[in-house]
Amino acid sequence: MAVNWPTDAPWRPVAGVRLATMAAGIRYKQRDDLLLITVPEGASAAAMFTRNAFCAAPVHVARRHLQHGAIRALVINAGNANAGTGAGGLQAAEESCQIVANALGCSPAQVLPFSTGVIGQPLPVAPFVRALPELATALSEDAWPQAARAIMTTDTLPKLRSRHITLTDGTAVTLTGICKGAGMIKPDMATMLAFLATDARVAPAHLDAALRGAVEGSFNAITVDGDTSTNDACVLLASGAAGATELHPASADWALFTAALTSLCQELAQGIIRDAEGATRFISVVVSGAASRDEARAVAYAVAESPLVKTAAFAGDPNWGRILAAVGRSGVADLDINRVSLWLDDVALIANGQPHPDYREEKGAAVAAQAEFSMRVDLGRGHHELTVWTCDYSYDYVKINAEYRS
Amino acid sequence: MAVNWPTDAPWRPVAGVRLATMAAGIRYKQRDDLLLITVPEGASAAAMFTRNAFCAAPVHVARRHLQHGAIRALVINAGNANAGTGAGGLQAAEESCQIVANALGCSPAQVLPFSTGVIGQPLPVAPFVRALPELATALSEDAWPQAARAIMTTDTLPKLRSRHITLTDGTAVTLTGICKGAGMIKPDMATMLAFLATDARVAPAHLDAALRGAVEGSFNAITVDGDTSTNDACVLLASGAAGATELHPASADWALFTAALTSLCQELAQGIIRDAEGATRFISVVVSGAASRDEARAVAYAVAESPLVKTAAFAGDPNWGRILAAVGRSGVADLDINRVSLWLDDVALIANGQPHPDYREEKGAAVAAQAEFSMRVDLGRGHHELTVWTCDYSYDYVKINAEYRS
Repeated sequence: MAVNWPTDAPWRPVAGVRLATMAAGIRYKQRDDLLLITVPEGASAAAMFTRNAFCAAPVHVARRHLQHGAIRALVINAGNANAGTGAGGLQAAEESCQIVANALGCSPAQVLPFSTGVIGQPLPVAPFVRALPELATALSEDAWPQAARAIMTTDTLPKLRSRHITLTDGTAVTLTGICKGAGMIKPDMATMLAFLATDARVAPAHLDAALRGAVEGSFNAITVDGDTSTNDACVLLASGAAGATELHPASADWALFTAALTSLCQELAQGIIRDAEGATRFISVVVSGAASRDEARAVAYAVAESPLVKTAAFAGDPNWGRILAAVGRSGVADLDINRVSLWLDDVALIANGQPHPDYREEKGAAVAAQAEFSMRVDLGRGHHELTVWTCDYSYDYVKINAEYRS
Repeated sequence: MAVNWPTDAPWRPVAGVRLATMAAGIRYKQRDDLLLITVPEGASAAAMFTRNAFCAAPVHVARRHLQHGAIRALVINAGNANAGTGAGGLQAAEESCQIVANALGCSPAQVLPFSTGVIGQPLPVAPFVRALPELATALSEDAWPQAARAIMTTDTLPKLRSRHITLTDGTAVTLTGICKGAGMIKPDMATMLAFLATDARVAPAHLDAALRGAVEGSFNAITVDGDTSTNDACVLLASGAAGATELHPASADWALFTAALTSLCQELAQGIIRDAEGATRFISVVVSGAASRDEARAVAYAVAESPLVKTAAFAGDPNWGRILAAVGRSGVADLDINRVSLWLDDVALIANGQPHPDYREEKGAAVAAQAEFSMRVDLGRGHHELTVWTCDYSYDYVKINAEYRS
């Protein structure tokens, strides 16, 4: 059902970053549901987590461990979110780090744990005990495709993409990432789970700045249903294996590196929307002419999360009344509707608050019939612009979310 | 499909308030779609309108006419919202008032116009011209049931209720109201369309205060989909025909009157949720222990509008993880999850942030299987409490909104 998301896009391993997956039986039968990622000594890590106050146990533990620095491994399970699990959940997350540390010969504080799946079920530790020895010996730089599959829950397709750049000194640098998530998606820091790695050498503070910049216009600019997950996490690892050159904000190559990182994050974030629960259309909501970025964001999310806009999109209905109604309730102070204009792709529907004289229903219907199109709103108030990516609401969205636990 | 909404509840006419309906062919075939309501000279009127910046043409005109005072009539059509219709829409709304004024022998400024239905279609004036002479001669105090039906759009049942009180001087006072609306419902002032009338004698300023107080905890406390309509309006007429006693805030009977008005508004507002598009469950979201009313409202709406909470409710799934996730993303600063508790009706699921030791899935499932239940969240931060009424999201919500225009 995913909208334009080829799974055979070329990708590259990242020197120094090794991965292994296993069917550990945490919840799913006969599919991989446990992923281990390791980086060499001296690597850097940066991460962003959900801002949901009810964040999951592994988020608490990963945040704390990240402060110690010197991260050597990530351990990720699918099928169980270890959220809403109280003190027992924290203990399980810490134990999973200890088990990984034992297998790898590092400290538990050098391991970051991540979980995704059903909320409110105790996370069993036994599968970690059984799986880790084998996982630790199976590590390989080539296991990214298996990793992308192992972290899936209601995703229908794995999400794996790469970027490759050449620095001014000739060093070849790779950035590769995977992510998952199809529902409970309105990331507020980062999406459900995204793991990115590069072989560039970047100090942790700079890596953190690069990640924050890239996430702002990618994972933090998508919404499926406005429901921010309890487990959102986005991690960027830098192995430093590409060469000796250290990248930092004053480097000639910093802009090249951060642009590649942002582009990678955007493609992966869009992949989440393309494969969102029940999605049949991929929609770019572009708000321009706003007096501030916050104003543009408020309008874009009001449109992108309107159930009426989303059900109309499912029907291929160019229902501009619902789009304008969402703009009108978005809370922009003193919005002058006589300055608002609206397009579907390049078809003008509303010009300065009035129906466009050239607009015909057939033109809008032709745009809305496509699997992929944009809703462009200009507020005529300023020069700020922002894009949010979203999808439609279909019968399958209801079906998937009404039946997920049963 | 409506959840517990008997249509045979007893109702009373309101002395001095006369109504008539007709099949005017505005959009629907073979059903009444035009309603005229009149009040005698000297009657008072108060009204509240949508705060959506894209409010419809009749809302603009009604707001302006209301300032003149001395309202004599309301004219309401279903099937066409006259919203997003530009200058032509304003002209159509004004012409409809002129046509009514001609038939009744009053001034156009004494007529308030209302429209509901599809957005973005020109409202034809010819049906008003054809219908008004007959409508004006058919006026009757007994036509409330027909009126409740004439204003329906995607409603499956008419909504008509009454209250009856006796003042301390022995005067019997009636309050009767109708309303409609089943989707694009998150009223921000008043719901889609609600018309209330009393035979009490109340000055316009006091009537306005009474209406605002009643709407706050009724029509402004419901949500179907978070989509505030462009046409919301709630009108309260006071004919004064019950007797000479004038009610005002210092009257001994003011509390009795406003309590009856609030109770009437609550029952009608709940009727909208019970008959919401595709609704199979009626859910009260009760937030207590909040540090402020705004905080309680933010949490209540985050839960009530969460697509994941609503699809779980459709499935009868006591999915407390989704409820807590919605609470957690509601934007309450410094929310301490260790003070948050959650109940479904009287079944405790979460106590102070931890799964309640006595909770068993069967207990929650038994509550969630009911057509009507409450989700109660205590934040443990203060003493403010607020209730919002909402419904589930079903396949039929998507079906109705994906097919409404086709």
